[in-house]
Amino acid sequence: MKLIVDCDTGIDDALALIYLLTSMDATQHGLAGIPGAADSSNPVELIGVTASFGNTTARQSARNSLDLLDLFGHSDVPVFLGHEHALGARSFEVSPGSAFIHGLNGVGDVELPHSAREVEKMPADEFFIESARRYGSELTILATGSLTSLAAAITRAPEAMAKAGRIVVMGCALTVPGSVNAWTEANVSQDPESADTVLRSGLPLVIVGRDVTAVTHLATDVPLRWKESGSPIGLLLGQMAAFYQRAYAVNFPALHGCFLPDPLAMAITLDESLVTNWLSRDLCIELDGPTRGRTIANRDNLFQHSSTRVALDYQRDTFLQRFMTLMDAQITHSL
Amino acid sequence: MKLIVDCDTGIDDALALIYLLTSMDATQHGLAGIPGAADSSNPVELIGVTASFGNTTARQSARNSLDLLDLFGHSDVPVFLGHEHALGARSFEVSPGSAFIHGLNGVGDVELPHSAREVEKMPADEFFIESARRYGSELTILATGSLTSLAAAITRAPEAMAKAGRIVVMGCALTVPGSVNAWTEANVSQDPESADTVLRSGLPLVIVGRDVTAVTHLATDVPLRWKESGSPIGLLLGQMAAFYQRAYAVNFPALHGCFLPDPLAMAITLDESLVTNWLSRDLCIELDGPTRGRTIANRDNLFQHSSTRVALDYQRDTFLQRFMTLMDAQITHSL
Repeated sequence: MKLIVDCDTGIDDALALIYLLTSMDATQHGLAGIPGAADSSNPVELIGVTASFGNTTARQSARNSLDLLDLFGHSDVPVFLGHEHALGARSFEVSPGSAFIHGLNGVGDVELPHSAREVEKMPADEFFIESARRYGSELTILATGSLTSLAAAITRAPEAMAKAGRIVVMGCALTVPGSVNAWTEANVSQDPESADTVLRSGLPLVIVGRDVTAVTHLATDVPLRWKESGSPIGLLLGQMAAFYQRAYAVNFPALHGCFLPDPLAMAITLDESLVTNWLSRDLCIELDGPTRGRTIANRDNLFQHSSTRVALDYQRDTFLQRFMTLMDAQITHSL
Repeated sequence: MKLIVDCDTGIDDALALIYLLTSMDATQHGLAGIPGAADSSNPVELIGVTASFGNTTARQSARNSLDLLDLFGHSDVPVFLGHEHALGARSFEVSPGSAFIHGLNGVGDVELPHSAREVEKMPADEFFIESARRYGSELTILATGSLTSLAAAITRAPEAMAKAGRIVVMGCALTVPGSVNAWTEANVSQDPESADTVLRSGLPLVIVGRDVTAVTHLATDVPLRWKESGSPIGLLLGQMAAFYQRAYAVNFPALHGCFLPDPLAMAITLDESLVTNWLSRDLCIELDGPTRGRTIANRDNLFQHSSTRVALDYQRDTFLQRFMTLMDAQITHSL
C-alpha cells in the first residue's frame, strides 16, 4: 500500500502518525508479527503527509508533521501544504475549542525538536492527483482533518482520483451525536461543502467516524505513566496526551480519559479486520436548514450498490492493546 | 411465540396483518414449509391486536383490525383500544398527509365487510402488562404506530414489562432521512416523548425503522394485477395497495411503487434471519432543539452492553418473495 496521511496535526493526529511510523518500523522495535502492523507482511510506504486545517492551521500542521517525521526517523517523507481554509471561506482561525484541546501549537504546547525541512512546492491537492495517477488502486489516502484539499482534487481531476484504491475519512457522525453539536462532527464542520463533495464522489470511501471513535478510551493513568517512564519520548507523549486529557476532563468528565479518534482511523487503515460491523451506505452532508453539517444516507442512492463503507463497531480491546504496544515500544526505544 | 400487534391500521398495517394471518394459516394455504412462516415449525399465537393512533385514529384502527381479523378467519383474536392521543396532547387528528396516504378510513377508502365484534373492555396498556406478566419471555409485541400505549405500560409497570421477550418497533430513522422531515420518522413524530420512553426503557428492543423500510419496494404493476385477478380478496388488496401507491406517486415519484414498512417489520418479527446487518446500540429521541424527533444513539450508554438491536440491512429479494407468496395465496384462496 502507498499511503498518504492528510492531517491537521493535532495531538491525536500526532499519536496516529507515531502509531504508523512505529508500525512501519515494527521489526526494528522487535515487534515483528504484531497483527495489523505495517511491516513486511503488510508493507506500507508512507509516500507523503499533507497538511489540512482544523485542530490547528494548515501551516502549523505541516510544521508539526515535519518535526514528528524527523523525530521518529522518517525525514525521507515529504510534507505538502493543503488548502488553508474552507472553499467557501476567506480565512481560517483555530476555534477556541480546538485550541483548548490541542494547544496553541497543535501538539499540546509541547515543544518538538525543530526540523530543518520545509514543505514541498507542490500543493496537497496536486500531490493527491499525481499519486492517484501514478499508483492507482495501490494508493490509500487517510484524511483526519478538514476535507478541503481532497474535495479540491476530486473536483479538479475526478477521473484521476477515481483510480485511488481507498479513501479513509476520520470524520462524520452517523448513528451517534456529533462533537460540535448534536448533529455535526468536527472535521465535517470545518468545511461541510467539501465533506459533501467527498462523500458524493462515488470513490471507494471508508468512514471511521464518531460512531466508532466515541467508543475509544485512553485512561488518565496512561499519560502519567508515560511521563514518569524516564524516557524522552515517554515524556513527550505523556505531556501531549495529558494536555489532551485536560480538555476531555472538562468536556467529558464522566469519561476519565480521552478518545483516540485518529489512532483508531490509522489502525483501521492498516488493518480493516478490526471493524466488526460495516454498513454499506452512501452518505452525504446536509448543507441547508437547521441540521447543516449532519451526516446522513444519500437518499438518492439507497437502492444502489454503495461505494462507501461505514465502520459502526470494532474490536475495542484489540485496538487499545495495539496502540499501547506501539507507544510502549517507542518509549522503551528511547530509554 | 405469543404475539401482540399494536397497530394504527393503516394500509401497510393491514397488509402486515394479512401477511401474519396467512403465514399462521400457511398449511391450510398449501404453503407449509415456507421459510419464516408462522406455521407449526415456528408456532405463533396472535393473542391480541391493540389499536394505536397515527395513520388513522385509534378507534378507526380498532375497527379496521376487527374487520380484517374477521374477514381473514381469525375472529377469535381480541382487539384492544389504545391511547387515543399523545401523552402531551389533549386530542389527535389524522394529519392531511396521513389521510392522503391511507384514506379517510385508514384502508384506502375501501369498504371492508363489517365485523359485529367490538373492542375489549381492557385498555391496550393493561393488556400489555397482563400479557408480559403471563407469558414473560414468550411474549413479542410488534408496534407499528405511535408508541403511546407501550410507553404508558412501561411507565406504569416497568418490572412486568421487563419480562417481555422482545418489543419490535416499526419506527425511527437512524442512518437515513426521516419521513416527516429530514430527521423525524412518522411514528416517532406522533409522540416523541413516548418513543423516547420506550427506547430508553432497557427492554429488549428490535428497531425496524426507515433504515430498512425505505429500501422496500412494491412495483406499481402488482396492485393492478391483484385487482384484475378476479378474486374478491385480490380486488380488495389491489384497491388498498393502489390507493397507497397513488400517494407515493406524488411523494416519491422516482420510486414507481411504494414502500412496505409494516409488512417488513412483520416479516422480521417472524424471522429475524432476514436481517443481514444488526447494530447493537441503545437509542433515544431528541426532544429539544431544532432536531426534535431525531433518532440517535443514547450517548450515555455507548460503552455499555446494548439492549437494542437496530436492523440496518436485510435480504430484500427474499422478503419481497415471501410477501408476494403470502398475498398470492390469499388471492388464489378466494378465487
